Amino acid sequence: MAVAGASGYAGGEILRLLLTHPAYVTGDLRLGSLTAGGNAGSTLGEHHPHLLPLADRVLSATTARELAGHDIVFLGLPHGNSAAIAEQLSEETVVIDCGADFRLTDSAAWDRYYGGEYAGHWPYGLPELPGGRERLIGATRIAVPGCYPTGASIAMAPAVAAGIVEPRVTVVSISGTSGAGRAPKANLLGSEVMGSVRAYGIAGAHRHTPEIRQNLSAAAGTDVVVSFTPVLAPMPRGILTTCSAPTSVTAAEAREVYRKAYDAEPFVHLLPEGQLPQTGSVIGSNAVTLQVDVDTDAGLLVVVAAIDNLTKGTAGAAVQSMNLAVGFTETDGLSTVGVAP
Amino acid sequence: MAVAGASGYAGGEILRLLLTHPAYVTGDLRLGSLTAGGNAGSTLGEHHPHLLPLADRVLSATTARELAGHDIVFLGLPHGNSAAIAEQLSEETVVIDCGADFRLTDSAAWDRYYGGEYAGHWPYGLPELPGGRERLIGATRIAVPGCYPTGASIAMAPAVAAGIVEPRVTVVSISGTSGAGRAPKANLLGSEVMGSVRAYGIAGAHRHTPEIRQNLSAAAGTDVVVSFTPVLAPMPRGILTTCSAPTSVTAAEAREVYRKAYDAEPFVHLLPEGQLPQTGSVIGSNAVTLQVDVDTDAGLLVVVAAIDNLTKGTAGAAVQSMNLAVGFTETDGLSTVGVAP
Amino acid sequence: MAVAGASGYAGGEILRLLLTHPAYVTGDLRLGSLTAGGNAGSTLGEHHPHLLPLADRVLSATTARELAGHDIVFLGLPHGNSAAIAEQLSEETVVIDCGADFRLTDSAAWDRYYGGEYAGHWPYGLPELPGGRERLIGATRIAVPGCYPTGASIAMAPAVAAGIVEPRVTVVSISGTSGAGRAPKANLLGSEVMGSVRAYGIAGAHRHTPEIRQNLSAAAGTDVVVSFTPVLAPMPRGILTTCSAPTSVTAAEAREVYRKAYDAEPFVHLLPEGQLPQTGSVIGSNAVTLQVDVDTDAGLLVVVAAIDNLTKGTAGAAVQSMNLAVGFTETDGLSTVGVAP
Amino acid sequence: MAVAGASGYAGGEILRLLLTHPAYVTGDLRLGSLTAGGNAGSTLGEHHPHLLPLADRVLSATTARELAGHDIVFLGLPHGNSAAIAEQLSEETVVIDCGADFRLTDSAAWDRYYGGEYAGHWPYGLPELPGGRERLIGATRIAVPGCYPTGASIAMAPAVAAGIVEPRVTVVSISGTSGAGRAPKANLLGSEVMGSVRAYGIAGAHRHTPEIRQNLSAAAGTDVVVSFTPVLAPMPRGILTTCSAPTSVTAAEAREVYRKAYDAEPFVHLLPEGQLPQTGSVIGSNAVTLQVDVDTDAGLLVVVAAIDNLTKGTAGAAVQSMNLAVGFTETDGLSTVGVAP
Repeated sequence: MAVAGASGYAGGEILRLLLTHPAYVTGDLRLGSLTAGGNAGSTLGEHHPHLLPLADRVLSATTARELAGHDIVFLGLPHGNSAAIAEQLSEETVVIDCGADFRLTDSAAWDRYYGGEYAGHWPYGLPELPGGRERLIGATRIAVPGCYPTGASIAMAPAVAAGIVEPRVTVVSISGTSGAGRAPKANLLGSEVMGSVRAYGIAGAHRHTPEIRQNLSAAAGTDVVVSFTPVLAPMPRGILTTCSAPTSVTAAEAREVYRKAYDAEPFVHLLPEGQLPQTGSVIGSNAVTLQVDVDTDAGLLVVVAAIDNLTKGTAGAAVQSMNLAVGFTETDGLSTVGVAP
Repeated sequence: MAVAGASGYAGGEILRLLLTHPAYVTGDLRLGSLTAGGNAGSTLGEHHPHLLPLADRVLSATTARELAGHDIVFLGLPHGNSAAIAEQLSEETVVIDCGADFRLTDSAAWDRYYGGEYAGHWPYGLPELPGGRERLIGATRIAVPGCYPTGASIAMAPAVAAGIVEPRVTVVSISGTSGAGRAPKANLLGSEVMGSVRAYGIAGAHRHTPEIRQNLSAAAGTDVVVSFTPVLAPMPRGILTTCSAPTSVTAAEAREVYRKAYDAEPFVHLLPEGQLPQTGSVIGSNAVTLQVDVDTDAGLLVVVAAIDNLTKGTAGAAVQSMNLAVGFTETDGLSTVGVAP
Repeated sequence: MAVAGASGYAGGEILRLLLTHPAYVTGDLRLGSLTAGGNAGSTLGEHHPHLLPLADRVLSATTARELAGHDIVFLGLPHGNSAAIAEQLSEETVVIDCGADFRLTDSAAWDRYYGGEYAGHWPYGLPELPGGRERLIGATRIAVPGCYPTGASIAMAPAVAAGIVEPRVTVVSISGTSGAGRAPKANLLGSEVMGSVRAYGIAGAHRHTPEIRQNLSAAAGTDVVVSFTPVLAPMPRGILTTCSAPTSVTAAEAREVYRKAYDAEPFVHLLPEGQLPQTGSVIGSNAVTLQVDVDTDAGLLVVVAAIDNLTKGTAGAAVQSMNLAVGFTETDGLSTVGVAP
Repeated sequence: MAVAGASGYAGGEILRLLLTHPAYVTGDLRLGSLTAGGNAGSTLGEHHPHLLPLADRVLSATTARELAGHDIVFLGLPHGNSAAIAEQLSEETVVIDCGADFRLTDSAAWDRYYGGEYAGHWPYGLPELPGGRERLIGATRIAVPGCYPTGASIAMAPAVAAGIVEPRVTVVSISGTSGAGRAPKANLLGSEVMGSVRAYGIAGAHRHTPEIRQNLSAAAGTDVVVSFTPVLAPMPRGILTTCSAPTSVTAAEAREVYRKAYDAEPFVHLLPEGQLPQTGSVIGSNAVTLQVDVDTDAGLLVVVAAIDNLTKGTAGAAVQSMNLAVGFTETDGLSTVGVAP
């Protein structure tokens, strides 16, 4: 198994999860190359001092040659870099891409939101979507969902699939800063983000908008219009997603739809009535906590979901997808227990 | 001038602003009684060590007798306590209530959201609403708006007043913790709120919902349906309000509506295109920063506003209202400069 | 196994660790009573929503009767409450007290810092101290160290034991807020602690001062004078301990002393030269990361240590001690991998 | 008046303070050029959205030509860039350098800690030091102190000057992140600093060490040995300085020394006994809050001081120095009121 982009946040989180994976503990799953871009040549401990057991591992340069020969390759690369690597890897290698390159099924959406050559799409690593699990069993190419689409899709897919809402969904997601990655930027400095929340990419400008729309439209079997507003909050991890859509059902009916949709899901938990999701209770966990209610005055279904953007929102989904792809137990290496407070 | 509830956050912020008020500096406005409930007998410095010039002031008990005889009285009391005090104060005394007691014009809304006897309503301290300023000139009883309604009302009043949106507004507001007050509660401990965001009072349950609806309906001249979701974020101050409503105008047309509405307002700033509000830039300031855009895919007007919940959201509005009521310059003691980073 | 005080932070962290303990996973270790004081009757999920697998467990009242009959009992109670419970439990029950009641060997120190009846002292749960591990094997009563003493003792014990410093140690420890517990207090509100650091209990006033002195004096074989300054920082978890003491050795010599002392310790990691400890890399982990250097201008050994106050500083030490007491592998249920960023 | 480096944190804070300066309000002090390096050509509002009244000001490039012709020039430049600019400015221009270039009187210390050509030293902008105020009256070149040395020098100068401690001082300072500036670096990203404290530059490695030693030695009239440990905390602003030094006086005697030293100082406040400084109470303020105690067991004087690193620690000192240099009232544009919570 290899991890490309091991010095980044996605790479680090994949490694954190793998260290507790039963197959790693028994030695069935072995850690081969850890690669990086500009950080090649340094030790993992310089970038991820929290991964003490791997602190002395030296990062090699991210090349197809370095990654070839591994049975499983995780890619945590900047957008646009995965295709060139992936096409040089054997078709039998399980390649799990945490980037956006292979998420969108619509090349026009790709052109509008990302640009550059459209690379196609791979099986999408969100087993909780209708039909999502089946697509991943035995897959050798997997596109890990974006962090915002994970929260929004799990929050609204049951409602649009069951037809209990009109296909117009408003999503406001409040995210920790690690979702913006580890490349140094002035507006992500601690001094800038602490003590402040800010919106960005409003009015449909954020790249995750078409991905949410794609997921919900597929679940609904009809086009779902999505309004998406991302907000940056002063915390390292976590996304709280608040969604609403016009409905005429009661809260009890809506809860029943969600109960049926997620009762068998190991990572999605509908909270007891009256208890609301908070990101602080899913840090480091692969869980999604949900609450569902109806605003009868406004005629809206309101759904709130909490995830850890780096775990269920990225690396946890990658490991969960790997488990399905290669035949491990789906929950291996993943927990529903967060670190709190 | 007296401040009741001086050891709380609203009281402390009123005092912070008054210390820079020109009339205080010249001695025309003098600080009389500072009162508290359980903290009576202690010094202000024990509760507000940031107010060094007033550190030795001793808090007296909050009684009508203690407050009587002042020409201006600010009330920063728990909800439900203002009416009993106010009715014992002279009608000529300018009484400015930071609590909810006199905000709602609809007694049914009061019954549903607050309960207890409905005390009536006072002139509402939000000069930026249509007709809002006129109501305050010479007023002797003023109800300071709630912090969430301030952000949401300033964000959406121009659009509903101009009729450029359908009267269905979705509001998600992300607030710092000081809005919840200073009474010790386990779920507001630093350990609980840091590193976490959480929703609460969803689906119309929050008490500020009817107040937002009241303001927007008055501005629109028709009933405006409001869906309101409050979110608690790990920061002491600030509210970021994100709003949307169905529209068919262009972004340029919408911006023009807001430009006209707020060009003459000293505290409301429409940011340049592409720049988004952040709470960190209005900390300690009475400013509201706004951005307006249209999501053409979703057919929605999107408005984002940032305020400091303790300043423009509470104490700044109280001081601004006082200025209008007693004939000071409206901006006295108030600034559009925040403390950042 | 039972946990008293399960709704508090120490109790919650013990449960978090136990959920991954091999003996719990296999069913050899079973969770019996979870008890609480005022929270008895509520579910664990209301207090620790991050412990999803235990969310439906109902808390019973903390009484000796409720705890009796368990082979292992963890006590996470307010100081002064453990003795009365413990004396009613069988001598064969392994009782592990996270409170201060049985830590101090000097009744005069107890009188001065805690007061009330001196209850005696139990084997001290810090295996990394000289002779510390032996005391715990087979023990049935264990006093878990205080969080500050854990960091300070691990940081300075090797130096005082080796005699490379004069027995005068200055300790400044910067702690997250969870160390102050979960009882609601106004000065621990998020609004108060975020964006601020403050000292407290300076000049020898903090109760952990005699415990640090006790540990270092025992390690040194002579009285070690300790100056201790605790500082509260705006984060939920973690303690960074900075220590200094007069020395005449070189940095290389000092590092060699620490290398020898901790090479075989599973949880203590001397970082590579030039890399400094940060609390963020040990969150949720039982690791202690250390750096050792000499300020040649000042003639001082400088040691910096990072721990998670709730894990190695409390619940991790409790589990580690349990492992030694009952014959599990010492590292069971404990990790050296933190959750970061 | 001109500000070079106006898009940085020091520059922004100078502008924030100047906006409230009486001479600016009356128009006697006028804002000329605002300059920047890479940010030249952009508006101030893009970098300091909290300075709304100046949002449209365009930054010009930092050159001596651009700065010439102003009567007062503030330099907020990276270390090593001030000398080349300053020597091209008229000797009558009041040049106030917020960088380190002209702080150290000892060229050997400069060589060891900074390197490059030693530029000499200017009158030092800390009026509260013995003789400090006199040096600044009428000065045309001023070196603003480093942020850490400000806290440590104010905390310990009275004690060393009065001879009540041995000349060996241990300083541990916990700082917010803005002290590290605004240049993007991976280890200063919000994701890295939130939820974590870390030490850096220990054992005498930090550049502020010789500056603290210089100040305290001058105050003592003899060489004072300084051990300095800086710690980075998760907050944007503020420095809490904890100091200790061997003493044989009582706490009352020590407090008396400090009372005498600072009674007439407008910005230094010795807190009542039992109240401890916290950075949160001096945010945006030019105040220094102090507490003084004696640890009789350890035989140490313990002093704790809180400042805002950007205000009293940088820009406030710059404005205070300007006031003294050009004959304004020393406190003009400066406040002892912080923004809290």
